[in-house]
Amino acid sequence: MPTETMKALRKTRAERGAQLESVAVPAIGPNDVLVRVRAASICGTDVHIYGWDKWSQGRIKPPLTFGHEFCGVVEKTGESVVAVKTGDFVSAEMHVACGHCYQCRVGQLHICQNVKVLGIDADGCFAEFVKIPATNIWKIDAAIPEHYAAIMDPLGNAVHTVLAGAIAGRTVAVVGCGPIGLMAIAVAKACGASTIFATEVNPHRLGMAKKMGADEALNPAEMDVVQRVKEATHGTGVDVMLEMSGNPKGIHEGFQMLRAGGRASLLGVPSQPVTFDLVADIIFKGATVQGIYGRKMFGTWEQMTSLLKAGRLNLEPLFKERMPLDDFQSAFEMLEGGQASKVLFYPNGNVR
Amino acid sequence: MPTETMKALRKTRAERGAQLESVAVPAIGPNDVLVRVRAASICGTDVHIYGWDKWSQGRIKPPLTFGHEFCGVVEKTGESVVAVKTGDFVSAEMHVACGHCYQCRVGQLHICQNVKVLGIDADGCFAEFVKIPATNIWKIDAAIPEHYAAIMDPLGNAVHTVLAGAIAGRTVAVVGCGPIGLMAIAVAKACGASTIFATEVNPHRLGMAKKMGADEALNPAEMDVVQRVKEATHGTGVDVMLEMSGNPKGIHEGFQMLRAGGRASLLGVPSQPVTFDLVADIIFKGATVQGIYGRKMFGTWEQMTSLLKAGRLNLEPLFKERMPLDDFQSAFEMLEGGQASKVLFYPNGNVR
Amino acid sequence: MPTETMKALRKTRAERGAQLESVAVPAIGPNDVLVRVRAASICGTDVHIYGWDKWSQGRIKPPLTFGHEFCGVVEKTGESVVAVKTGDFVSAEMHVACGHCYQCRVGQLHICQNVKVLGIDADGCFAEFVKIPATNIWKIDAAIPEHYAAIMDPLGNAVHTVLAGAIAGRTVAVVGCGPIGLMAIAVAKACGASTIFATEVNPHRLGMAKKMGADEALNPAEMDVVQRVKEATHGTGVDVMLEMSGNPKGIHEGFQMLRAGGRASLLGVPSQPVTFDLVADIIFKGATVQGIYGRKMFGTWEQMTSLLKAGRLNLEPLFKERMPLDDFQSAFEMLEGGQASKVLFYPNGNVR
Amino acid sequence: MPTETMKALRKTRAERGAQLESVAVPAIGPNDVLVRVRAASICGTDVHIYGWDKWSQGRIKPPLTFGHEFCGVVEKTGESVVAVKTGDFVSAEMHVACGHCYQCRVGQLHICQNVKVLGIDADGCFAEFVKIPATNIWKIDAAIPEHYAAIMDPLGNAVHTVLAGAIAGRTVAVVGCGPIGLMAIAVAKACGASTIFATEVNPHRLGMAKKMGADEALNPAEMDVVQRVKEATHGTGVDVMLEMSGNPKGIHEGFQMLRAGGRASLLGVPSQPVTFDLVADIIFKGATVQGIYGRKMFGTWEQMTSLLKAGRLNLEPLFKERMPLDDFQSAFEMLEGGQASKVLFYPNGNVR
Repeated sequence: MPTETMKALRKTRAERGAQLESVAVPAIGPNDVLVRVRAASICGTDVHIYGWDKWSQGRIKPPLTFGHEFCGVVEKTGESVVAVKTGDFVSAEMHVACGHCYQCRVGQLHICQNVKVLGIDADGCFAEFVKIPATNIWKIDAAIPEHYAAIMDPLGNAVHTVLAGAIAGRTVAVVGCGPIGLMAIAVAKACGASTIFATEVNPHRLGMAKKMGADEALNPAEMDVVQRVKEATHGTGVDVMLEMSGNPKGIHEGFQMLRAGGRASLLGVPSQPVTFDLVADIIFKGATVQGIYGRKMFGTWEQMTSLLKAGRLNLEPLFKERMPLDDFQSAFEMLEGGQASKVLFYPNGNVR
Repeated sequence: MPTETMKALRKTRAERGAQLESVAVPAIGPNDVLVRVRAASICGTDVHIYGWDKWSQGRIKPPLTFGHEFCGVVEKTGESVVAVKTGDFVSAEMHVACGHCYQCRVGQLHICQNVKVLGIDADGCFAEFVKIPATNIWKIDAAIPEHYAAIMDPLGNAVHTVLAGAIAGRTVAVVGCGPIGLMAIAVAKACGASTIFATEVNPHRLGMAKKMGADEALNPAEMDVVQRVKEATHGTGVDVMLEMSGNPKGIHEGFQMLRAGGRASLLGVPSQPVTFDLVADIIFKGATVQGIYGRKMFGTWEQMTSLLKAGRLNLEPLFKERMPLDDFQSAFEMLEGGQASKVLFYPNGNVR
Repeated sequence: MPTETMKALRKTRAERGAQLESVAVPAIGPNDVLVRVRAASICGTDVHIYGWDKWSQGRIKPPLTFGHEFCGVVEKTGESVVAVKTGDFVSAEMHVACGHCYQCRVGQLHICQNVKVLGIDADGCFAEFVKIPATNIWKIDAAIPEHYAAIMDPLGNAVHTVLAGAIAGRTVAVVGCGPIGLMAIAVAKACGASTIFATEVNPHRLGMAKKMGADEALNPAEMDVVQRVKEATHGTGVDVMLEMSGNPKGIHEGFQMLRAGGRASLLGVPSQPVTFDLVADIIFKGATVQGIYGRKMFGTWEQMTSLLKAGRLNLEPLFKERMPLDDFQSAFEMLEGGQASKVLFYPNGNVR
Repeated sequence: MPTETMKALRKTRAERGAQLESVAVPAIGPNDVLVRVRAASICGTDVHIYGWDKWSQGRIKPPLTFGHEFCGVVEKTGESVVAVKTGDFVSAEMHVACGHCYQCRVGQLHICQNVKVLGIDADGCFAEFVKIPATNIWKIDAAIPEHYAAIMDPLGNAVHTVLAGAIAGRTVAVVGCGPIGLMAIAVAKACGASTIFATEVNPHRLGMAKKMGADEALNPAEMDVVQRVKEATHGTGVDVMLEMSGNPKGIHEGFQMLRAGGRASLLGVPSQPVTFDLVADIIFKGATVQGIYGRKMFGTWEQMTSLLKAGRLNLEPLFKERMPLDDFQSAFEMLEGGQASKVLFYPNGNVR
């Protein structure tokens, strides 16, 4: 049984920063589950919320407990919940689909017209406890390490992107090596990609790219990456381009690297409109371009679980600091410095 | 046996216009076929070549017999040709693939890295005779009307675009009602599209759209077409958007009409780079965007043949003037006036 | 508000026949909906249950109100139901998926490991009222005729089968012309199938096949149907084979008609094991064979709705008798005689 | 320039055995290539031809030089050949497609209606030289080991089977561990399969299965393999079943292991008709079954090349004896003893 109040990291004011507060433990409805958070991971989005950027100002309505990557143990379940039990070790899909719109009805819950994201539109997981609808709970297989369980949300982005089309025996360019780009390298490698080219301007991230399995880690600030990829593919270009940067120059280079008939899967979010040479980059090339959002519910979760259980993904290089919730300030500052690593909070203590 | 010279409509000078000349009947190699042209149809590209626009100036090397849509009767075959016989009634794929590049090897001949287009890069069909590699010949089923056989090239574009994804039971927006857009309406209807919205600023073409089977023909110059399509789809948007205009405003409207999780197939060729709201139009929408070029060799030809043989396509409204090659000037002027109709030349006379 | 008892057609004893009884109107839970049945249609499965065949003896546990094809008006909704309202005109998916098994989690609810079928495993719709989980309710668009709404369950089988792969511009063999086979003909036609061959030994059904749109209706009792289809396809065979008979001879003929590289979608349920020439029929042919069960939840329902709203399906020839529930005996006897038509009950009277 | 005669291993009589003869070096046509064989590998089919089984008796017309797995160096090219040069190190697709049938026209050359197999229907590669149509030549990337190049034909079968559907993050059952089954294990592992169950009655082959990467190697002669796989998958069954045995019991077990909604890809060739419980194994399961024949031309060859170049496949355990052509008798006898290994001939000497 939870105590009546808990510690939570909250955005209480429309300005930079966050506040550690004592708030009521969430009350759950008949179809909800209350989870005691074991570890929570900081997403780039959380860094934006902390920094109070333009996007945050338009979307976030304080007060809000933020955070949407975590794992934990089920503390309590609502009376109608049958498939989740107290004591289950779980993570959760934080995109809550409405269940009634066209997309939900045809099995595309990840692009629900009325989606609500926990940690953005409602209270999230930077707290001792978090309330989750039972249908969004994902039970963690015992073979999966605890700290991996805390990052299934971004790993799901990576898996969704990589497996949105054929990958085995394909040459791949990963454009942008933030955490999800880095995970995508590991996933592509595990799934039979032949040669993986990673591009990134930050040298530290570029070094990580090699550690995650990239065959060539290329810095567009120092070389003509398009030319290099063309050379290495006998002038053809890569079969698959995974756009993880959201950077207009990166997007442009990515499309130039892509072979005629190739697939471009776009996850990175540019902050403004992007100008395309539609004819050369997509139309005459017969390219397929996919927008990627979230993770498939729950096909992607099954794929992740299979890959993790089988030990096919080495994500260790990604993990860096682990700390109590109290040290949040140093965590956000570290990440604002351009680290592509994952920092974990342990809101209930017992950091390891 | 052909006479030694023949009449041909040629681009002999780097300037507006064309010349009717007497030239040698093409000599054929061991793997070629010589076809006596029965009817040839004028493509928008031919109008560009005639008018000598910027694209033509960069691509066309006079002297050239242009024209790439036709049907005719095989006059003679090279000694190594086995699957085509003298007297066969045929059309042809005018994109000649190299057979050796990556795309050719994996069955994507329509996006061959070294494609050469007859009528653009080498002599075409605005002549009494045309030389075609035997592998590019397509035999016309006896059940298919002669004038339909003359426009299988653009019909192939339409079929390739429409059938690049699921269409049965889908709502569809056709953006731009030139000849290929109009054909796409007929094809989508025949293939089970539920509601077809056509958008076009030219009122004559808009009227044609209704004749070809559009459920709603909407003029963006007169109304908010995005709002209308959203209303008609209960706010969801269309499942499929077929971009046939190449117009930046049309492209933008098309993407706004598209539902989350929908398919956009782009055939229209914009004359300059286009600016996109990638996030709203593609990424967060989880959309799939396909560049469409040419026709599949020869999957699309089989599909066309089946649909035409079965009488599933009524293309009659598209046909307008039929004339001897000598009247080429009036033909091009008519089309420069914005007609979306097909004008047929009969280079060997016997116009009907 | 419903009266406290209602009329229901029930299987009360483990023997041939059925009983019309007065039973309590079902009590609904928080997530359920009570529907006043307007029209209910008799499925072949209901005929088996009535006749008490071997399958029924193993599956049906009397007492049971049977029937699983219907439409009606929502009478009452449970307190947690938000997306359905009293007065809505609805049909329903009668396969109730568990929501927790692997298949449910990856969006394949139609092959849920723990599916329960209303009208077979729990009370169905041959009654004045039927209780349905709210998530299984399908609202009927106002443009769809009432009697069509009563047969969306079998129509969904047909649509699921036809649209399980490409159909536009394809030659199709429909093997077996019971009601679902007949519907499949209409669906295939509406979705761009080029030539449709229907095979069936019952001459009445064969006549119906023509009415529904078959290009050739062939009787295997009178001719070599495989040879005929091969001839008509220049020796190649059909692109798509839809198995609707469950008859071993039909299945065998169907596979022989199928071209190398073709698709066979199997819906018909053979009553015993079937012997295959796996090598010739599937392996060397590079064929794709799909087992089809139920309808996709709710992708198929969306497709049906679109096709029906757009008026693309003429199902009128299928409908025959309409009667009150009291006349059930004559209804079942008529269908036992081999009619492929749909007979409708009107449990609340007002037959039309 | 080749000498005028060469050594060839031939089937000269309709009986068990083979003869080493001196025959004329093949004369090549304008579109052919003559290859000096470096290494040739023995297929199970060759063992059947040697043993003169029932299939061989119906298909093979002596005299014939058999053998269809090899690599070598181009000795001479026909005058029309442009994409292959003397001195190129190559292998070849030995299925020669007609180029004109429906399947060839739509890009399914691997199931050509008029396919001719070199080494079966015309002279093959158990000789110092072999004649190959230039379009069937596959150039070997310098990064690929010579002995791997000799087995690209069966490796292509394995790759075609494994990649005929999604494999990443999937549980897989490989039924039958002959050479192609063993290769399939390595390919599935390299392409991200999570858990791989291999079944096989021969203990030696079962041991090889572990070496190639199987997670569980199960002997159906000793245990209930279906039950084991069900247990290990929490009752669900495997996502993918690759049938490599052609054995009726194996086929049956394979389908029982397959989960509802799973994929079964069948390559093994049963010697007689097989009886199926179609309803339980395919229909109600919503399974997809694929017949697999040959390799895609040349999509599969590209995939193989990519995987081999990237060093993703360890096939070393498969290789056993290497010998001159003269020792053919001991080679066939070894393989008739049930070895799943690859034996290589070196017809031009220099065995290594």
